[in-house]
Amino acid sequence: MVNKGAKPGSATRRPTVEALEVLLQEPIKVLDHGFIRVVDYMGDDKAIVDAARVSYGRGTKTASEDRALIHYLMRHHHTTPFEMAEIKFHIKLPIFVARQWIRHRTASVNEYSARYSILDKEFYLPTEDQLASQSDENRQGRGKTLSSTESAQVLGILRQDAERNYEHYEWMLNADSKDGNRAGIARELARINLTLNTYTQWYWKIDLHNLLHFLRLRVDRHAQSEIRQYARQMLTVVQAWVPQTYEAFVEHRLEAINLSRTATSVVRRMIKGEQVTQSNSGLSKREWLDLLAGLAIAPEDDR
Amino acid sequence: MVNKGAKPGSATRRPTVEALEVLLQEPIKVLDHGFIRVVDYMGDDKAIVDAARVSYGRGTKTASEDRALIHYLMRHHHTTPFEMAEIKFHIKLPIFVARQWIRHRTASVNEYSARYSILDKEFYLPTEDQLASQSDENRQGRGKTLSSTESAQVLGILRQDAERNYEHYEWMLNADSKDGNRAGIARELARINLTLNTYTQWYWKIDLHNLLHFLRLRVDRHAQSEIRQYARQMLTVVQAWVPQTYEAFVEHRLEAINLSRTATSVVRRMIKGEQVTQSNSGLSKREWLDLLAGLAIAPEDDR
Amino acid sequence: MVNKGAKPGSATRRPTVEALEVLLQEPIKVLDHGFIRVVDYMGDDKAIVDAARVSYGRGTKTASEDRALIHYLMRHHHTTPFEMAEIKFHIKLPIFVARQWIRHRTASVNEYSARYSILDKEFYLPTEDQLASQSDENRQGRGKTLSSTESAQVLGILRQDAERNYEHYEWMLNADSKDGNRAGIARELARINLTLNTYTQWYWKIDLHNLLHFLRLRVDRHAQSEIRQYARQMLTVVQAWVPQTYEAFVEHRLEAINLSRTATSVVRRMIKGEQVTQSNSGLSKREWLDLLAGLAIAPEDDR
Amino acid sequence: MVNKGAKPGSATRRPTVEALEVLLQEPIKVLDHGFIRVVDYMGDDKAIVDAARVSYGRGTKTASEDRALIHYLMRHHHTTPFEMAEIKFHIKLPIFVARQWIRHRTASVNEYSARYSILDKEFYLPTEDQLASQSDENRQGRGKTLSSTESAQVLGILRQDAERNYEHYEWMLNADSKDGNRAGIARELARINLTLNTYTQWYWKIDLHNLLHFLRLRVDRHAQSEIRQYARQMLTVVQAWVPQTYEAFVEHRLEAINLSRTATSVVRRMIKGEQVTQSNSGLSKREWLDLLAGLAIAPEDDR
Repeated sequence: MVNKGAKPGSATRRPTVEALEVLLQEPIKVLDHGFIRVVDYMGDDKAIVDAARVSYGRGTKTASEDRALIHYLMRHHHTTPFEMAEIKFHIKLPIFVARQWIRHRTASVNEYSARYSILDKEFYLPTEDQLASQSDENRQGRGKTLSSTESAQVLGILRQDAERNYEHYEWMLNADSKDGNRAGIARELARINLTLNTYTQWYWKIDLHNLLHFLRLRVDRHAQSEIRQYARQMLTVVQAWVPQTYEAFVEHRLEAINLSRTATSVVRRMIKGEQVTQSNSGLSKREWLDLLAGLAIAPEDDR
Repeated sequence: MVNKGAKPGSATRRPTVEALEVLLQEPIKVLDHGFIRVVDYMGDDKAIVDAARVSYGRGTKTASEDRALIHYLMRHHHTTPFEMAEIKFHIKLPIFVARQWIRHRTASVNEYSARYSILDKEFYLPTEDQLASQSDENRQGRGKTLSSTESAQVLGILRQDAERNYEHYEWMLNADSKDGNRAGIARELARINLTLNTYTQWYWKIDLHNLLHFLRLRVDRHAQSEIRQYARQMLTVVQAWVPQTYEAFVEHRLEAINLSRTATSVVRRMIKGEQVTQSNSGLSKREWLDLLAGLAIAPEDDR
Repeated sequence: MVNKGAKPGSATRRPTVEALEVLLQEPIKVLDHGFIRVVDYMGDDKAIVDAARVSYGRGTKTASEDRALIHYLMRHHHTTPFEMAEIKFHIKLPIFVARQWIRHRTASVNEYSARYSILDKEFYLPTEDQLASQSDENRQGRGKTLSSTESAQVLGILRQDAERNYEHYEWMLNADSKDGNRAGIARELARINLTLNTYTQWYWKIDLHNLLHFLRLRVDRHAQSEIRQYARQMLTVVQAWVPQTYEAFVEHRLEAINLSRTATSVVRRMIKGEQVTQSNSGLSKREWLDLLAGLAIAPEDDR
Repeated sequence: MVNKGAKPGSATRRPTVEALEVLLQEPIKVLDHGFIRVVDYMGDDKAIVDAARVSYGRGTKTASEDRALIHYLMRHHHTTPFEMAEIKFHIKLPIFVARQWIRHRTASVNEYSARYSILDKEFYLPTEDQLASQSDENRQGRGKTLSSTESAQVLGILRQDAERNYEHYEWMLNADSKDGNRAGIARELARINLTLNTYTQWYWKIDLHNLLHFLRLRVDRHAQSEIRQYARQMLTVVQAWVPQTYEAFVEHRLEAINLSRTATSVVRRMIKGEQVTQSNSGLSKREWLDLLAGLAIAPEDDR
């Protein structure tokens, strides 16, 4: 990535991460008009280790090396050391995505105000491969991709409605008094005519512990595809910033599975060589299939 | 208020507030289709006093009576006793109001999910007296009310755009497979076509301290008119629930004024009988006018 | 439990839990002088379900029954419905326990103030079976119980030091001006002479989601024995209050195990009948032993 | 301040504050053995302005200059931009101060663990000018300084009790197995014998908005003298770090006064030249004296 806008760096005695300095200020494209952009950060893998070692005091002499300590902290849910690193993003995103995002309350946000300012004429239109029917199994997900005819119809509607509503927004604002006979209405009122795929933007600042929690939920296959695309890009930022933490996060969270009490007893029986079936497992159909998937066992076996 | 839906009450040994029991479960109308409805509560004025008195231990023998103590707590920003009371609302509100509301992070929320379910065909349309032009002085406010001609035009647009977009939403969902040749698209996608004045609803639970903070900001004249209408109704609920706290809140917050260091010195000079003007006050124009307003001095005096 | 202090109940239309009403206000003894006491509560299992169902809107027609829904919410980490129930305790506890407890930031607290009031002459002294040497394996735990001689010595020291320091506290306060020649010192200063096993007390209010998180960490065998004794009593309160949530909590949290990516692949190999040893597992010694313990496999097998 | 430990700086494209770089890592002494030490920071005055201006979008063209904007934000309680700057301290402090400090929940903390490690033999002993009797007017404050005889007695007690309890702590630990006949007890148990003036230490990370809130409460004359000494040193750090924010904080918070509804009407009457007395003011004695103090009017006037 060519770092066109790079200012000559200042000198600092703070922890500095070269791999993240390269990304600083550069927009990383997401969806059709969105982006994430790292604006600032504080701390690195070493800062997490330092915070954890405050606890050990004199004991640090024999402490295991950094990577092992970070794995230990992640494995045992010692969350406060990961709160000691912080990152700030500038993000451009559709309003319906912003509404899901803001439910994470442990972050600081400054959003573009449509009461002060006029929103740009930009709205999210899905690509054809994103246009899918309601899932049959998953009440909140997508099923099969649409036919190209139906896709074209849907995209036509989304585009026309967003554009028409935006044009009416501009007309109601009458911001440049194009029509001298009209007063126009306040920005805070006119914007209520805009569609939920209109883009907004914000500064979003969060500590690493809470960012990982956000990412765990939002890269999950149950999250809506659009917010997952943001989460996946942020995950690559985390990997550049704190590679040891990233590795521990993948090992103990992202690719870990939670075995309920009943699922644990099923696994015990399987290890003993017992043929367990859903009906004698004590698990519901859904739990049973999730367990098989987690263990990479084909369900047709129905062992 | 006739309490039609009243179930026969259960017996409880918890603090109970009769004036709030009467309001329980009853929707209080706000805007054209919105409401607030108290679903549950915990604590009363006495519970706040009890929590505060834990601090005093043996000292309670000589403690002043409840009302004075609540005033003392409010005046000295002792916030934790007010966290000891809690309330839960069911609220129906337009999405653009929900977006302002959710910025208050110290509450618990369960919102209607447009990924799981289909939104109702209900959208906020301002009354004519709410339709006003952009304010000249206030970059985020409203100025003069529109002419009736322009009002009618604006309302026509808002209604038609919201209705058309909703009809397209239904068409894209094809929920009842009216058109057997189309798969329809997932709910989570179709809803991006809806306008920001579409109604949503949620359960919202918050402690009294944070509720008062919310109300202080949202009954303020700088808040958008629509959210103020919700805040004003909630204020009447607070008055019924914790009347002593309500009184202290009005005295020390809602109708109190904050004098900056410079404004304090202006007031000192005024009390000594000095003729202070904006130019010799050390205050900006805006601060000067706010001070005069706070002191109910007509600015034309320009004392 | 005889409910001596019971006032005749008030009538309420709020959700009421009989099994918890019985416990209301009654101190449940913990350690030598401590207790927990439920002061108030809000919500029940049904309130959690109601909040979750706001999300489903029209979809509720086909919704599964309450118990299944609560399991589903717990399993899929849908935390906000569990925030909709709230509980308030009055707790008496030693200061060193209070210092661990307060690290949980998502609660409201009003603590007895040793600046305002004089602390009681009460301090925690461990029972003999609690007096143990430093663990060899666990840097933050206990190992073998002391000999009765050493126990007696230790208890003697703890008692004498706490008593002497308390007597000096009283002397420095000179609260009743026993010695007319001395002014005595301020309470906020005198208390710095007290030992960390002195008892304090507070009101502590928390929502159910955060309470379960607290309990998960504090009933854990890595938590210090003294705080675990409080946590275990609170767990019985949760069971009385929200029995369905309690059951789901045990199933999906308390008795569940987390399999890391590597541990999951070990389990897959075991199920296929492969003989896995620590050395070919990819796990550290500690992780390997924890996995065997989780699966109830004796380590001596070293399969 | 000579920056002995300075490593040669890394290059960074992040906002950098020279006046704070100089302070980085250097302990600033507080009390007899305590210190604060800035470990890391993120953002500066400009970062606050940038975050605020996200809201203005296109409107930034005519936006007022930075200093005026920061004053505006502070005056109107726009708190989120101040959350965009972050600072991390390493702090050494007595346990009784730590207990007051930790009540501020909006920070991240990693504390030295007396379960893992052995605490140092360091405890806070007040200087003679800090040793004062209980205040007569203020139930939580200090009155007159002690006589030198009584001071010497009190300091003797504090020193002897802390030392004896520490020596018993060491004896009970038997950490180096000086006495081969004893097992010693676990660190987590032995420490309960220590006094509340024993020093602990932690990493403490907080955003600027919440830091200012902490400082406002903790430099206040109602705060205990010991924590005020920490707060005052932190205030000088804030001044070096974000000088414009510091100035606005002093103007609109630290040296501002809050006039209740009733106090406002008293001020109005005073400005009109009316002779107001406590008895006709509608204020309590305490409120009346606070108002006079705020307006720098001698109470003997009793105007």
